[in-house]
Amino acid sequence: MDVVDLADKLSLFTQHWSPKRVATLNDYEIKVVKIQGEFVWHTHDDTDELFLVLSGTLTIQLRDGDVVLGPGQLYVVPRGVEHCPVAQDEVHAVLIEPRGVVNTGSAGGPLTAVVEAL
Amino acid sequence: MDVVDLADKLSLFTQHWSPKRVATLNDYEIKVVKIQGEFVWHTHDDTDELFLVLSGTLTIQLRDGDVVLGPGQLYVVPRGVEHCPVAQDEVHAVLIEPRGVVNTGSAGGPLTAVVEAL
Repeated sequence: MDVVDLADKLSLFTQHWSPKRVATLNDYEIKVVKIQGEFVWHTHDDTDELFLVLSGTLTIQLRDGDVVLGPGQLYVVPRGVEHCPVAQDEVHAVLIEPRGVVNTGSAGGPLTAVVEAL
Repeated sequence: MDVVDLADKLSLFTQHWSPKRVATLNDYEIKVVKIQGEFVWHTHDDTDELFLVLSGTLTIQLRDGDVVLGPGQLYVVPRGVEHCPVAQDEVHAVLIEPRGVVNTGSAGGPLTAVVEAL
């Protein structure tokens, strides 16, 4: 496995809401993602999900309030907790969760992405 | 769980080679660590180990060559691969691995740390 430069990886694509795998850690995937606009409300019943913001400001809407993340800040959405990320301006972030987790969780729909490796 | 600001967490301690848990992701621990000097050669037989550098330059010595990481770069040491981190000047980094992994792996010795939560 090679050194992963997160900024370099993020320079290789432009799509929003389409996480790209940049490394694996046992059965977990380390992904980078570009976020802008509002996602869909969804839940991952079987796993926590880690968001680490590299640039921009990410709001993770929860049913009982918003979590706001800036660069160098992370938050773990607990399993079973409904959430909906939103960002007015583009955010670059790292996502970490087990291999095979679907980005839209229980919600499905057009924003459901196939995770490719970069 | 609250928002975790990595720089804030790193400002709370000064010890080198003493990872502090700042979040959990299922059965994984997200830790911050300050690194300076040379660690011990060791192996984790049962797990990969992720290093993400936030500041400074970290060299991960492997038996078949060095991996050099700067800010925003990560590397996953595969399970079973002997390694020895070293840094001339202080490095701030994130470590991710399953709960309960001992920092000195199979080597043990005086640098073995108990992971506390911050």
